[in-house]
Parts: sequence; structure tokens; C-alpha cells
Amino acid sequence: MTDIAMIEAAAARLAGRVRRTPLLSSPFLDRIAGRRVLVKAECLQHTGSFKFRGAWSAVSALTPEVRARGVLAYSSGNHAQGVAWAAALHGVPAVIIMPADAPAVKIDNTRALGAEVVLYDRATESREAIGTAIAADRGLTLIRPYDQPQVIAGQGTTGLEIAEQAADQCVTRADVLVCCGGGGLTAGIALALAARAPGLRARPAEPAGFDDTARSLAAGQRLRNAAAAGSICDAIVTPEPGEITFPILQQLAGPGLVVTDDEAMEAMALAFARLRIVLEPGGAVALAAALFRPDQIAGDAVVAVASGGNVDAALFARALARA
Amino acid sequence: MTDIAMIEAAAARLAGRVRRTPLLSSPFLDRIAGRRVLVKAECLQHTGSFKFRGAWSAVSALTPEVRARGVLAYSSGNHAQGVAWAAALHGVPAVIIMPADAPAVKIDNTRALGAEVVLYDRATESREAIGTAIAADRGLTLIRPYDQPQVIAGQGTTGLEIAEQAADQCVTRADVLVCCGGGGLTAGIALALAARAPGLRARPAEPAGFDDTARSLAAGQRLRNAAAAGSICDAIVTPEPGEITFPILQQLAGPGLVVTDDEAMEAMALAFARLRIVLEPGGAVALAAALFRPDQIAGDAVVAVASGGNVDAALFARALARA
Repeated sequence: MTDIAMIEAAAARLAGRVRRTPLLSSPFLDRIAGRRVLVKAECLQHTGSFKFRGAWSAVSALTPEVRARGVLAYSSGNHAQGVAWAAALHGVPAVIIMPADAPAVKIDNTRALGAEVVLYDRATESREAIGTAIAADRGLTLIRPYDQPQVIAGQGTTGLEIAEQAADQCVTRADVLVCCGGGGLTAGIALALAARAPGLRARPAEPAGFDDTARSLAAGQRLRNAAAAGSICDAIVTPEPGEITFPILQQLAGPGLVVTDDEAMEAMALAFARLRIVLEPGGAVALAAALFRPDQIAGDAVVAVASGGNVDAALFARALARA
Repeated sequence: MTDIAMIEAAAARLAGRVRRTPLLSSPFLDRIAGRRVLVKAECLQHTGSFKFRGAWSAVSALTPEVRARGVLAYSSGNHAQGVAWAAALHGVPAVIIMPADAPAVKIDNTRALGAEVVLYDRATESREAIGTAIAADRGLTLIRPYDQPQVIAGQGTTGLEIAEQAADQCVTRADVLVCCGGGGLTAGIALALAARAPGLRARPAEPAGFDDTARSLAAGQRLRNAAAAGSICDAIVTPEPGEITFPILQQLAGPGLVVTDDEAMEAMALAFARLRIVLEPGGAVALAAALFRPDQIAGDAVVAVASGGNVDAALFARALARA
């Protein structure tokens, strides 16, 4: 299981490989939120999201012999790019299983990062069956998007940085809002903060209709979302909390926060104008919660993790048109 | 005159006050440029541009008695916001002289940063006359946008960071392209690099039609632009190189590079997609030169300073529509 020692070990492997992303702020955002808002800009991470941390952690933790055979991931999004690039920098093969109807630009980008992309038909084929067959045939190691201890440890390095950077800004007691899908980033940050900055508390932030983690935490058991898709925050839509991540959140995380798609878009526009960073809708959910749910947050400061910025130009322009 | 000792002293005053902005990169940009491209993201600086460095340097260098009376600046853009915020954080008054026809959002933002905005009519009034009268009456100190040694010293701290961050990425010989208006940032960086990283050479980058610095360097004397306005890169349009900055550039900077407005817009779109940062046209000129003038650059790496990100949503959406 992931613990602080595993996160610290991941941080040592990641040193010089991941970016120490800045903790940004703006007096204009503080005014909206009614308290100081510190934004951890993981959209500036390699491949545009925090996923590179977990991917690097998992790939670098393999024995050289196992790693040399290569890795495999299922993803049409940020995890795919993180795994592809971590493998490329290690000089080992990566196979990414993607739906044939994924946006062409995502397929092209994943290939351009050095991965072999295997397409499957969502309607008639099982990605698990295809992946399992390829992995067995070629001896590839599966890198899961969240339910894997070394992946959670890599995401947890974000929490180590937040603990230090928030203290540098004299913030030692605050909620740390985290865009939450399967819970790998939230769980990793929760573990890091509990050990290194106990006055900071991780809380998941989710889009309305896909608030499985908030509801599960309230119910004390894992609950599924009613729908499988339908939010513009696609990067953080998962069917239910992870098997490994959920017990960590139950133990360490505060209550979940939920925002609408519209509020996520509004937060994108504000991040553009006030922080000059690019966020995707799923990466703006925590900032939206920090800005638009003041009554559900205590204290005179809040930290929001801006988890990713892989958004196409047309959708981003729609968010700007609201500003 | 500004020298490395003055820049180091400015860096000490700026420590903990300015952001150490990241040096970003993307394999996709490297591929376009045909060499490694490292982007110093000063758009992530407080107030959205490097101008905060020079403003903080100048305000913090005043004696407490002089500073307490307040400061004054003429600007409708990034310098105004930098001076306003540096003064606000020092707890001293700032008066900013702005044209009455400046965009309302810029006037509002400058006021929101705590400054007193004095509007004048460009057609019938002289901002110098108004500013001189107010300054004399209230004992305010003028903070110039570039032709002032402590301002140049503050901008030079960008160069100290580039020297360290480039070395961390094993880049010790390269051209450092800098978006250039009056030359304060370029001169400051040139001084810092000459002292701390002599294998790195500052070179100005300018928009076509407003390449006064490139032409002046080639001619060996200060030349004016034919037009006073007419580029979307308005943040870096000045009539001619500065009186103080130009001799520094003559001594230390390499030849200038010139790009079109269209190329600046293209660089904005690429910075959006590949670095997830927001650039204004004038802040994208150096990146455009790094990407689109490969034949005028030597070596296997290039550094581009992304100097600012204060752009309105409509113009940014136009840049994205090109992508």
C-alpha cells in the first residue's frame, strides 16, 4: 500500500524529471472567493497534467528487465500521454489501447510521444481482452490510471510540493481541493499532507452528476454514478471511486465538493484572465469549488489543484466567450 | 548605470516577492524549431508580465521617506499594473496616468490593484504636463517603463534565473530571444547573462514594422519606427530604443529577429496547445522567432522569453481559431 515512505521514494525518482509546478495566486481571485486562493498549476506539468507524475513513478519503479519489455495503458486522455512520455524518456516501448473514435488529435499526440497506439471498436471489442492478449504476448506491464500503489505515490508528490509551497506563503491550515476522478491524485495528496502538513486537508472536487466520490464518502461505501458519460469534465469522469484509493480518502479526506459544468467553464475563463494558464474543464473543477462554494470551505485560505490543461481550442474559446 | 551588482541587489530585494517563473518545454515545439526550445514563462509573473520585477526593484530601492510619498507612472498596459501592484504591496500610493480611451478593463484592473488612475485626453492634453504637475504637487517619484537603472536591474533578475534554469537543463550555449520594446528586459537579461552565463547571448525579437531595435543595432545608431502604432503586439511597440538601454544592447546583444503579427498569433496558439500558458501577441514574439526563424539561430537549443500574458478573450480566441 502507498504510504509516505513510498511517496518520498517516488519524489526522489521524479527529481529533475517532473516540473515543480508553481503555486499561483491573484488578488482578483481572492476577492471572488473571499479568502486567499492558491492554485497548484499542474497543467504546466510535462504532457499537460499531473498524470506524468504517476506514470513516471510506476515506470521508474519497475526492475530494469521488466521495464525493458515495455508498458501498456488503456486511456484516451491524460493518462495515455503521461505513460507514453514516461516510457519514451526511459527508452522503453509503450502500447496505448485507445477507442477508434477518440479524437484524431489525441491519437496523433499519443503517437507523437513515441507510443504504439492500438485502436479498438468500443461497440464490438473489449479493450481489456485486447490489452491482456498483447500484454501477455509481449510481456508488457499494465500501468493503471489510479488503482496502483506506485501511481498513487507519484501523484502524492504533488502533495509534498503543496506542503512546502503553501508554508512558504505562510499557509499551514487550509482545505486543499483536488479535481477527483478515480481518486489517485486526491489519495496521493491526502497521504502526503497527512504526513507532512497535517493542517492541510485534501478534499475531492467533482462535476455535478459525476460526484461518486462525494456521495461515497457521505454514505461510507463506494457508490456508482448513474451515467457513464455526459460531462464536459471528461478527464475526471469515472464509474466509481477506486478500490485502493477509496479507503485512503475515507480515512484522510474531507467532504467532497460539487460544481456544475458551467462553473467549471467560468473557472477556466478566470484562470485564463487572472493566472494566464490553460485549464481543461476537468482540471478547473477544484478552482471552481474554491471560487463558487465559499460557504462550504472554512479558513482564510484555500488551495486548489489545477490538474490538467489538455483542452481543444474550440471548447476553450467557448469558455472564454463567457468571460 | 545598471551592472551585475545592481541586478544581484535587486534579486535580493525581489526574493520571495516575485515568482521564479518556470522554464517550460515541449517535444512538439522542439520538433517545429528543429532544436530544443526552452520558454521562460514570465506571463506567470505577478500582474501577468515581467514588468512587476522592474517595478518592485524601483519602488523597493527608494528611501522609505521618498517611497512613502508615492510613485507615478504613464502607461496603459503592463507597466501600469506592475507599478500599481508593487506600490500596493509596499503600502504606498500609486498614480497612473492613462489615456481616457484606454480599454475600460485595463482602467478597472489598474484601479483594482490599488492605484489612483488619472485619465487624460490624448488629443488635447499632454500626459507629461499632467504627470509632472501631480508629481511635483504630491512629491511622487516617476517610475519609467525602461530607461531607469533600477528598472533595468529588476528585469535583469529574469536573466539570473534563466542562467540557472538553463544550466539545470544542461544548456550553457544558446541564444536567448527576448520580446523587445524599449529594451529594458533585453538589456537587463543581456547584463545578467554576460556576467553569469557568458555562453548565453541575449537577442531582441520584434514585430515587423516596429523593429527599431534590430535596425538600430545593424546601423549602429538609434533609429525610429515609421509608425507609432499598428501592430497587435502593442505591448512592445515603442518609438525607438531607449537612451540608456541601447548602449547596453550595442555592447552585449546579438542581432535582432523580426516576426510578423501572424507568426506571433501562431506562437500564441502553440503556447496554448503545447505549454498550456496564455501569451499576449507582444509576449509571443520571441517564441515565434524561436520557432519560425531557425535559419537565423545557431546551436542545438534556444531560449525564448514569453514576456507577458495580458490579452483579452476575443483576441486570444482569434489566435486559437488559427490552430
